[in-house]
Amino acid sequence: MTAEAPADARSVGVVEPRTMRFDVPLPLASGAQLARYELRYETYGALNAARDNAVLVCHALNASHHVAGTYAGVPRSTGWWDNMVGPGKPLDTRRFFVIGVNNLGSCFGSTGPMSIDPATGKPYGASFPLVTVEDWVDAQARLADALGIERFAAVLGGSLGGMQALSWAIRYPQRLRHCVAIATTPRLSAQNIAFNDVARTAIRSDPDFHDGDFYAHGVVPRRGLQVARMLGHITYLSGDDMTERFGRSLRNGDYGFGYGAEFEVESYLRYQGDKFSEYFDANTYLLITRALDYFDPAREHGGDLVRALAPAIAKFLLISFTTDWRFAPERTREIASALIANGRDVVCSEIDAPHGHDAFLLADPRYHDLVAAYFQRIAQEGA
Amino acid sequence: MTAEAPADARSVGVVEPRTMRFDVPLPLASGAQLARYELRYETYGALNAARDNAVLVCHALNASHHVAGTYAGVPRSTGWWDNMVGPGKPLDTRRFFVIGVNNLGSCFGSTGPMSIDPATGKPYGASFPLVTVEDWVDAQARLADALGIERFAAVLGGSLGGMQALSWAIRYPQRLRHCVAIATTPRLSAQNIAFNDVARTAIRSDPDFHDGDFYAHGVVPRRGLQVARMLGHITYLSGDDMTERFGRSLRNGDYGFGYGAEFEVESYLRYQGDKFSEYFDANTYLLITRALDYFDPAREHGGDLVRALAPAIAKFLLISFTTDWRFAPERTREIASALIANGRDVVCSEIDAPHGHDAFLLADPRYHDLVAAYFQRIAQEGA
Repeated sequence: MTAEAPADARSVGVVEPRTMRFDVPLPLASGAQLARYELRYETYGALNAARDNAVLVCHALNASHHVAGTYAGVPRSTGWWDNMVGPGKPLDTRRFFVIGVNNLGSCFGSTGPMSIDPATGKPYGASFPLVTVEDWVDAQARLADALGIERFAAVLGGSLGGMQALSWAIRYPQRLRHCVAIATTPRLSAQNIAFNDVARTAIRSDPDFHDGDFYAHGVVPRRGLQVARMLGHITYLSGDDMTERFGRSLRNGDYGFGYGAEFEVESYLRYQGDKFSEYFDANTYLLITRALDYFDPAREHGGDLVRALAPAIAKFLLISFTTDWRFAPERTREIASALIANGRDVVCSEIDAPHGHDAFLLADPRYHDLVAAYFQRIAQEGA
Repeated sequence: MTAEAPADARSVGVVEPRTMRFDVPLPLASGAQLARYELRYETYGALNAARDNAVLVCHALNASHHVAGTYAGVPRSTGWWDNMVGPGKPLDTRRFFVIGVNNLGSCFGSTGPMSIDPATGKPYGASFPLVTVEDWVDAQARLADALGIERFAAVLGGSLGGMQALSWAIRYPQRLRHCVAIATTPRLSAQNIAFNDVARTAIRSDPDFHDGDFYAHGVVPRRGLQVARMLGHITYLSGDDMTERFGRSLRNGDYGFGYGAEFEVESYLRYQGDKFSEYFDANTYLLITRALDYFDPAREHGGDLVRALAPAIAKFLLISFTTDWRFAPERTREIASALIANGRDVVCSEIDAPHGHDAFLLADPRYHDLVAAYFQRIAQEGA
């Protein structure tokens, strides 16, 4: 056993994103194709000689390739899953070569609606094609090819990232030994879709959206983005967690008989929404929520998830959180049942955590210990 | 026993709203006052000679004084709780004199933001004072005075209407024999307030809102109202009910790779939101959701609901619905516990119903049978 490193030694440290260019057209689920595109990615740790220690981390709605570490000279630039990935962390970069990749259509460096369409010399805007979870996975597979990774030790993700991990297991069964899908679902419910559509309606009805071509008008549909983010944020937290964190606390101790941010929870949400509207692209928000809506691998099998997962031969770690009402534990149990019906090797754990859907991003010890133990097993079993 | 009347004989029939004018200023919780105001109301059944068979029905966010019956010559004008109120219905108008009243600040005839401010000759708009549940109850008490009703047989309401019923029991304990509070809560949770604030943010950030004075601009903040209503609607239904009603059904059988209403649930919600934006006043939406946020009778007692309910001497019927995640059964149990701690007479029932918060408006037989039996008891016990 290695003695645990001190806290500051458990970061991957300063990192730099890289860009991979692809010139072979990518066919998309919609029937459209992307003639050329770029993927922004980061790596942590080192690929071993056998090239069998690579782990792909897939991101959710508003995250990116910047999973761990910090950017030189940029304050508060810590990666979104830095508590999970690093030397001595659950996904230990002393053993694994970890890759984070920004998805197509996102707004953090990979080709997306904000990118210049080579055909017009202007941003794609509304003309950027709608991409699906499967399209992302296909693009990620090409990145793996380019990096010389034939088979991942694991593909890992939470929420929408978990959908990508599941899709990897179905589409490229030979290319991953383990699939780690956290706080995810085999398909959105009507309620999930409904929340997405309210958010999209807020963005699309913002006069500054200009049907997606707001770049040309020099504006941003900030009002719509703020509402979308406020709403999304509520669904990421549990009701009890919100009560615990905010309760009915008033910022100034008494009612103001107006519509300012009087309750702490209002202040918090408005701030989160406002901040989000400064950095997130509205077209990306639409595109990614639609990809969420569309994900449903059982659909082409008449709704039969057992048949949909039949091609998967990876071993699975599935984790859900008791208070996650966005993608409740029942959804993960559906995945587990379908895998077991296919005779697959499944570890399925339901973590009793108070923080709702967002629990997958937090460092709950039971959760992290489980992931750490699972990756130790992966490291020990070899390829 | 009377034989059950045929279906069409169980309606109160054609009704007409009436208006009561008040010229004595109404002091409000905010410190402001309304110098003059009108209340729009309807009555069904007949006040008996002892004047002890009156029942007040309090409405929730988007309802009104028009509880039962229809308006002559107006199609689809059935009252919002017509399944509950009528001859032979749970609240039987052959025995009870039922009053529905539109609350101050609402947009269906009582004085509110759309009314002309006598001081300026223009609509109040944003200058209409914020009113609270307690203010509504005070105004309703004056209406009762004007109608010669000293003591109600019962005050009844669901959701926000249930808050008014509770407030009646606290503020005017001598003036009601029974308090029937359905699908309600002693205070909004942080999550409840958060959803309200998202809806308000959508309305207030709509450029057509003009800080509440949109009447003068000849526009209506329809986009904001649509988003507010779509969001509200989701919280009124249970997730399972949405799955049952809509699932992932597609209007055209396949994905369209765009942002139109492809899923049935999108189509339904957008339609509901659109319809709502045609008839509901944006300032009223803000005002009523703020009244919801502020309701918290325990607040002036250091959060002690037992002390807050100590003045109440009515008998109580409390009903909640298992799948109501907006005001969950736990909230009703809190009210019941506090009343029992005060030695009050409480019937508390949790109805196993699939329809979420909206269950209080639906004719579930177990629910209606319970209300019917309770009102039979009230009728039999006399004053």
